[in-house]
Amino acid sequence: MRHLLGIETLRPDQITVLLDLADDYVRLNRSPAKHGQALAGLTQINMFFEASTRTQASFEIAGMRLGADVMSMPMQASSIKKGETLIDTALTLNAMHPDLLVVRHPHSGAVALLAEKVNCAVINAGDGRHEHPTQALLDALTIRRTKGRLHRLTVAICGDIAHSRVARSNILLLGRMESRIRLIGPPTLIPAGAADWGVEVFHDMRAGLKNADVVMMLRLQKERMDGAFIPSAREYYHRYGLDAEKLAHAAPDAIVMHPGPMNRGVEIDGTIADDINRSVIQEQVEMGVAVRMAAMDLLARNLRGRPAVVSA
Amino acid sequence: MRHLLGIETLRPDQITVLLDLADDYVRLNRSPAKHGQALAGLTQINMFFEASTRTQASFEIAGMRLGADVMSMPMQASSIKKGETLIDTALTLNAMHPDLLVVRHPHSGAVALLAEKVNCAVINAGDGRHEHPTQALLDALTIRRTKGRLHRLTVAICGDIAHSRVARSNILLLGRMESRIRLIGPPTLIPAGAADWGVEVFHDMRAGLKNADVVMMLRLQKERMDGAFIPSAREYYHRYGLDAEKLAHAAPDAIVMHPGPMNRGVEIDGTIADDINRSVIQEQVEMGVAVRMAAMDLLARNLRGRPAVVSA
Amino acid sequence: MRHLLGIETLRPDQITVLLDLADDYVRLNRSPAKHGQALAGLTQINMFFEASTRTQASFEIAGMRLGADVMSMPMQASSIKKGETLIDTALTLNAMHPDLLVVRHPHSGAVALLAEKVNCAVINAGDGRHEHPTQALLDALTIRRTKGRLHRLTVAICGDIAHSRVARSNILLLGRMESRIRLIGPPTLIPAGAADWGVEVFHDMRAGLKNADVVMMLRLQKERMDGAFIPSAREYYHRYGLDAEKLAHAAPDAIVMHPGPMNRGVEIDGTIADDINRSVIQEQVEMGVAVRMAAMDLLARNLRGRPAVVSA
Repeated sequence: MRHLLGIETLRPDQITVLLDLADDYVRLNRSPAKHGQALAGLTQINMFFEASTRTQASFEIAGMRLGADVMSMPMQASSIKKGETLIDTALTLNAMHPDLLVVRHPHSGAVALLAEKVNCAVINAGDGRHEHPTQALLDALTIRRTKGRLHRLTVAICGDIAHSRVARSNILLLGRMESRIRLIGPPTLIPAGAADWGVEVFHDMRAGLKNADVVMMLRLQKERMDGAFIPSAREYYHRYGLDAEKLAHAAPDAIVMHPGPMNRGVEIDGTIADDINRSVIQEQVEMGVAVRMAAMDLLARNLRGRPAVVSA
Repeated sequence: MRHLLGIETLRPDQITVLLDLADDYVRLNRSPAKHGQALAGLTQINMFFEASTRTQASFEIAGMRLGADVMSMPMQASSIKKGETLIDTALTLNAMHPDLLVVRHPHSGAVALLAEKVNCAVINAGDGRHEHPTQALLDALTIRRTKGRLHRLTVAICGDIAHSRVARSNILLLGRMESRIRLIGPPTLIPAGAADWGVEVFHDMRAGLKNADVVMMLRLQKERMDGAFIPSAREYYHRYGLDAEKLAHAAPDAIVMHPGPMNRGVEIDGTIADDINRSVIQEQVEMGVAVRMAAMDLLARNLRGRPAVVSA
Repeated sequence: MRHLLGIETLRPDQITVLLDLADDYVRLNRSPAKHGQALAGLTQINMFFEASTRTQASFEIAGMRLGADVMSMPMQASSIKKGETLIDTALTLNAMHPDLLVVRHPHSGAVALLAEKVNCAVINAGDGRHEHPTQALLDALTIRRTKGRLHRLTVAICGDIAHSRVARSNILLLGRMESRIRLIGPPTLIPAGAADWGVEVFHDMRAGLKNADVVMMLRLQKERMDGAFIPSAREYYHRYGLDAEKLAHAAPDAIVMHPGPMNRGVEIDGTIADDINRSVIQEQVEMGVAVRMAAMDLLARNLRGRPAVVSA
C-alpha cells in the first residue's frame, strides 16, 4: 500500500489488516500512556482545501500520538491565492521531504492527481463527492466492534446519498465485506444510477429501515447542493429524519451512526443521537483516530521498507 | 482538582500550592534547558471560540514545554458553522481522548457546562464576563514575587470592571488571600452590586489610588460594550488613564499591572507602561506561561492518579 | 551571529559556513531518519504578518525536524487588532522566553526594530521591500550545488526588481561572493538607482540573458504595486516572460530559478519550469528547509554559548 486514495482499490484482506491494527491503537488511546513511536521523526503535512474540524483534528492527533512532526497548512490563506496551481503547491511541499501528505479537496480526483506527482505517501481525507476512505474504515471498525463482524449485515444508509463521499466509500467497503446495503432518501438525493451499484434503493424510511442491523445517517451537504432542490429542514425531518418511531422498524439491536457534524432535529432526533444504547456516534469519532493511526503506520512501514504487515 | 474552571472554587491552600509550583516553572523557563516532561505523551487541545494572541500562545507554549501533544483548533472555521452545537463539538473532541481541554468562550458558564460532558480535565481560559482563573493566578504570582506576599495589600483595580472577567477572578482571588480591594472606574463601567462584594468603590482615580500597593489597569473591552455608553478615548484617558500625576497618589513602591493587550494613551501612559521600576507588565506575561504549566501539571497528576500534590 | 536580519551584515566566510552546514542538512532531510536534535527543547515562534505558504511551512518543518517546540502565530487574528503595537506584541512573546523568533512583516525595517527589543535570536523571513536573507541563502546553496561555485558566475535576475526583497538580498549575496549580476526588467520595475549597485541593467531580455549561467526569474508582486503601472499579463509575458526562445540566449547549461509561487504563462513558460534539465525550482524549495535548519542551528549554538562554529 503506497497511498490510501480510496476504498475502491483495497482488497478485503487489506481492510482486515488495517482494522486489526486499528484495534490495537484503540487500546493505546484508552491507556494512560497513549503515545507511540511508529511515526517518530517522520513529517506529516495536512493540506485541507476545505475546512474541517473533526477530520483535520483527528489526523493531527493521530500523527502527534505516533511521534510525527505534524504541520497543518492553512490552505485558505495559501499561495493558491497568489496564482499558484494545486500541482505546484503539492510539488513545493513535496520538495520539503514530507513522508505523509493528508489531503482534502473539493474536487473529485484531485487527491489522486496530486499523488501521482509526489514521492511521499498520500492519504485522501475526502475529495469532492468521490471518496473518503478513512471515514468508511472508521465506520467499518465501529460496526465490527459492535456487531462482531462486517459480513451478512443489513446496513441502511439514509439521507443525502448524492452529495456524499462518505456514502460512496461506505458502499464500496461494506459491499466488499459482503454486507447488504440499502440506500434511503428522496429521489433528488439519490443518484440516477444507484440501482446498478448492487444496492437496494428506498424512498420510504420505514420500508428501508425494516430489520436493518445498522442505521447510518448522513449529513445534509447543503454546501454542495448548488441548484439542486433543497427540502425545508422541517419537511426533511418529517420524512427522512431518524426518530424513535422510524427507528422502531429496524432490528431491535440496530445501531445508529452519523459521520458528524450533526444537524439535530433535521437529520436525527437529539434523543436518539444521545442514546448510549443505540447511538455509536462518539465511538465513530474515537475509531477515527485509531483508524488514521493504523493507516499512517502502515504507509510509513511501506515507506521505510520494513517487512510489510499488509501484503500489498 | 479535576478542572480549573474558576477561582471561586479554589481554596487558599490550593492557590498557594499552584503558585509554589509555578515558581519552579519560572526557573525552568529561564534556564537554557527549558523543557520538561510533566505532560509527556498527553494530548492537550485548545479550543478558543474568541480570538486571543497572548492567552492561546501562552497555553501552547506551556503545553509544548512540558512535552504534551498540543493541538489548537481554529474554532472560527469549525463545525459550529455547519450547525453543530457546542456540546456536540466538545463530545467529538472528547472522543479523541484528550487529557487537557483549554477552552475560551464568549458566553459566561459555557466552559463549566462543557466540563460536565467530558472525561478530561478542562481549563477555563476565559468565559464571557465570568472568570479567567489563570489570569488571576498569574497576577497573583507576579504580585507575590514583587511584594513578597499576597495578604494585607491594597490593590486598586481600575477601568472597565463591568465587562471584565479578569477583574472578577482577581477580586475573588485577592479577597480570598486577604488583600484589600478597591475598584475604580466610571459609574457606567462598575456593576451596580459591586459594593456588596467586600470591595471599596471609587469613581475618582486619585482617591482610589491613594497609598495603593498594586495598581491593576484593565483593558477597555470595547467588543463587549454593546449598547453601553462608551466614553471617548481622550475623555477616558483624562479621567481614568494612568499617568504619572495620578500614579503619584499610590504608594511610592506601588507596582503597575495590565493584562494586555494595552491601548497606550487610553488606559495607560506609554512611559509608565515601559518604566521597569514600576511596570510589571512583561513579568505578568512571563508568569502566565509558568502558571499555566503548573495548572496543567497539577491536573495531569490528578488524571494519572499520582500522589496528589494538592489536597483537593 | 546573534540575529539573521539580512545579507548586508554577513561576511563571505559566514555565508560559506552556513551553506556548508546546510549541505549537511540536505543529507539529513534525504535520509529515512530525518530528525535531528539541534534545537531540542528550544522554543521557536513564527510571526508572519503577511500570509506565506512556503516560507512559513519551510521554517515550521525546519524547526520541528531539529526538535524545537514550534508555534506559529496567526497574526491576522492577533492582538494588533485590539490596538496593540508591533513592539508590544513582540515584547509579549519575548516574555514567554522563546529562543528563536521568525518574523515576516510588510514594512521594511520592522524586523530589525523588533530585534532590538527582544532577548532571543531573530530571523528576518522577509520585511517589506528590504531583505529576505534565507531566500538569498537558499538560492546561493542551489547555485553552488549545481554550478560548483558562487564566484565568477553571470547571474541574470529578471522581472519585478523594484518590489522584490528577494532580488535585493540576492544582489547583496551574489555581489559579495564575486558573481556578476544583471538586472532585467521594464524601466518601471527597476529602481532608479539600480545602476549604482554594481550591477548591469537591461530592459531587453535577450541582451540581458546572453551567456548567463543562472537565470533567476521573480514573481510579479502585484500586492505591492499600489499605483504603479502594471503591464497586462499577456504583454508582460511577451516581453519578459521566460520562454524557450529567450532562454536560448543564455549559456547552454544555464539553470532556471524562481522563488515561487509561480504565475505560469506570465513570468515563465510552464514547460521550462518543469524541465528537470534546466529548472532547479524544486531544488530551491528543498534547499530552503536545509538553509533554515542551518541558520537556526547556528543561532541556537550562539544562544547557548557553545563553541561558535561561525567566527562572528
